[in-house]
Amino acid sequence: MADPAIHLANLRRQPPLVHAITNYVAMDLSANALLAAGAVPAMVHAEDEAAEFAGIADALVVNIGTLSPPWVRAMAAAAGAAAAAGRPWVLDPVAAGATAYRRTTAHSLLALTPTVLRGNASEILALAGTGGQGRGPDSADPVDRAEAAARDLAAAQGCIVAVTGARDYVTDGGAALHIANGHPMMSKVTALGCALSALVAAFVGGAPGEALAATAAALAFVGVAGERAAAAAGGPGSFRVAFLDALAGLDGPSLAAAARISPA
Amino acid sequence: MADPAIHLANLRRQPPLVHAITNYVAMDLSANALLAAGAVPAMVHAEDEAAEFAGIADALVVNIGTLSPPWVRAMAAAAGAAAAAGRPWVLDPVAAGATAYRRTTAHSLLALTPTVLRGNASEILALAGTGGQGRGPDSADPVDRAEAAARDLAAAQGCIVAVTGARDYVTDGGAALHIANGHPMMSKVTALGCALSALVAAFVGGAPGEALAATAAALAFVGVAGERAAAAAGGPGSFRVAFLDALAGLDGPSLAAAARISPA
Amino acid sequence: MADPAIHLANLRRQPPLVHAITNYVAMDLSANALLAAGAVPAMVHAEDEAAEFAGIADALVVNIGTLSPPWVRAMAAAAGAAAAAGRPWVLDPVAAGATAYRRTTAHSLLALTPTVLRGNASEILALAGTGGQGRGPDSADPVDRAEAAARDLAAAQGCIVAVTGARDYVTDGGAALHIANGHPMMSKVTALGCALSALVAAFVGGAPGEALAATAAALAFVGVAGERAAAAAGGPGSFRVAFLDALAGLDGPSLAAAARISPA
Repeated sequence: MADPAIHLANLRRQPPLVHAITNYVAMDLSANALLAAGAVPAMVHAEDEAAEFAGIADALVVNIGTLSPPWVRAMAAAAGAAAAAGRPWVLDPVAAGATAYRRTTAHSLLALTPTVLRGNASEILALAGTGGQGRGPDSADPVDRAEAAARDLAAAQGCIVAVTGARDYVTDGGAALHIANGHPMMSKVTALGCALSALVAAFVGGAPGEALAATAAALAFVGVAGERAAAAAGGPGSFRVAFLDALAGLDGPSLAAAARISPA
Repeated sequence: MADPAIHLANLRRQPPLVHAITNYVAMDLSANALLAAGAVPAMVHAEDEAAEFAGIADALVVNIGTLSPPWVRAMAAAAGAAAAAGRPWVLDPVAAGATAYRRTTAHSLLALTPTVLRGNASEILALAGTGGQGRGPDSADPVDRAEAAARDLAAAQGCIVAVTGARDYVTDGGAALHIANGHPMMSKVTALGCALSALVAAFVGGAPGEALAATAAALAFVGVAGERAAAAAGGPGSFRVAFLDALAGLDGPSLAAAARISPA
Repeated sequence: MADPAIHLANLRRQPPLVHAITNYVAMDLSANALLAAGAVPAMVHAEDEAAEFAGIADALVVNIGTLSPPWVRAMAAAAGAAAAAGRPWVLDPVAAGATAYRRTTAHSLLALTPTVLRGNASEILALAGTGGQGRGPDSADPVDRAEAAARDLAAAQGCIVAVTGARDYVTDGGAALHIANGHPMMSKVTALGCALSALVAAFVGGAPGEALAATAAALAFVGVAGERAAAAAGGPGSFRVAFLDALAGLDGPSLAAAARISPA
């Protein structure tokens, strides 16, 4: 069973350098969320340096939210370099089903075997080839509709698959966990799911061989911070501010007490 | 006469998917403003997918704040696809008069007949070919100096033209409205005008055939939210946070009571 | 001796237009910090217009945080145009030592003779060719370890070099100053150093021939704002908000009273 407090303590004792190739909308929040949690962000996307940097960093997150051909090439090069260096990497297939370009890109990156694939239900269903209703970045499907597809995809790809939503689901193709933290206001702040993927990279980067538990810990950490922020916020603007404060202020014992992780 | 409460209710009952090709500075605030208002943002700029996505979304906003050749090609492709699919699109010609590249780009996009052209007085004057003093993104001209040019431009292009500033002016070339909401602190937050253009797209996307009234409703909505935020803010940092909270918290009756829309 | 209040008053009496070619993560905060301080930001990076715009603006900041070949070409063109027009420009060599691409780019821009080079200790040491431990954007070296290298670099390049950290150091190769303002929480907000470089450009843009004193004034201004923000903040999210409010609210007499500038 995951003990999220141990993973959080590890992250803060030895702050991982997280290499992020993420979308333009998500960069600011992702970097600030990583800093608030205790990790060190670096946004490096040029083809001229992405692979070199992926070999330096402790973990990599690749997010396809805003694509263009040079970025896609850098994503593939960085993912390959991270894998070659034995570093974990996380794939966030934003709006994977929305256009042909996204479908192609997401599939080609998935073929490079991420350590963790993190998406909403529509994105996971689109990658599994079993539907997925999303037109844009938001999910049109509930998490439980994507659980079987996630388990099959995890088994077929040899990776962790995390489906996030009202109740998150994480699986390595065999074991599976539910994480029942979070708050509806989290869907009213742009790129919060992208920041979550960056935090998954931070947690997994500090826990080699424990990717399932580390992913669940990251999801619980973010969910509990979201609950705390919602209690303090008067709307989505103040929620985002309070969310960053909560990431920084949340300690291990409080996380352990509030995390709702259970076998799925 | 515009009834902004009806337009806001429409937007929230059927949240429009707004495709934004906007500048790097504006992406975060535009996406968060759309979410706070009740719409669904998607930032998609690659030439490989922009036209396809414009056919999926309910409305498009094209903003030239940070340009480069691949983006300009994607802007034109998306605008063409939106028009072909009968979807409204909004052009925000940031700093149109500042450099030759901006003048050329803004004119070529204007030739694709946006549903709404939204700029400050200097930008509208630059596009009308009748002056415009701006060196940078801020207006050096008052709104009323651009009203005649805006009316002529709207008539010539067959589009709505909105000139925003201390008192906004909106015209379809015949009818015209003033919107006297807002607060000076709105000019101390970067990209707030860009977010306004994105919200115009959201409002117009939900009101086919009522683009003049929907544009006025969006301007009043943003202006009233700015007034509320200013009352709560201690400076531009807290103003931005309060502005997003106000967009989310403002309801139809309060908007109708506070909106100051009048014939021009 | 620098009188930061005079520099701040100059900036607010005649707001400089600051041309920023900065990284994707830093754009939002840099633009908002410039606006809050009283300057006018403009983000213009396309090769097609960067040089033209650099000739229009009052100062330029070039930041290599997120690089790609077209941006590097635009940076060089803009720096050349600023120098040709007699306008000051500031170089921020983010993570200069982290990859070969960054080392090459930072050195080629440094050869174009910035008015001010502003970095953390690891970045300045990397550029001086005397070590520098940083893997990512954060410094792994204390400021005092880089002071001798900074003085030599300033003398060799004929520019101001500012090394920022717990206590900042600024030198023109002969005279040198320490600025002992700031707060540790400033390192928990992404891109705050980048925003600082933009503010240095704003201060130097308004004080031709006084680049050393203007740089020290900018560092004290930001440090004092950071101290005020920390007193009001509950974490890095609210710190960032309070920091922007403090930049806007800080007046000359308060800055003069709180600034801790001394000969080094």
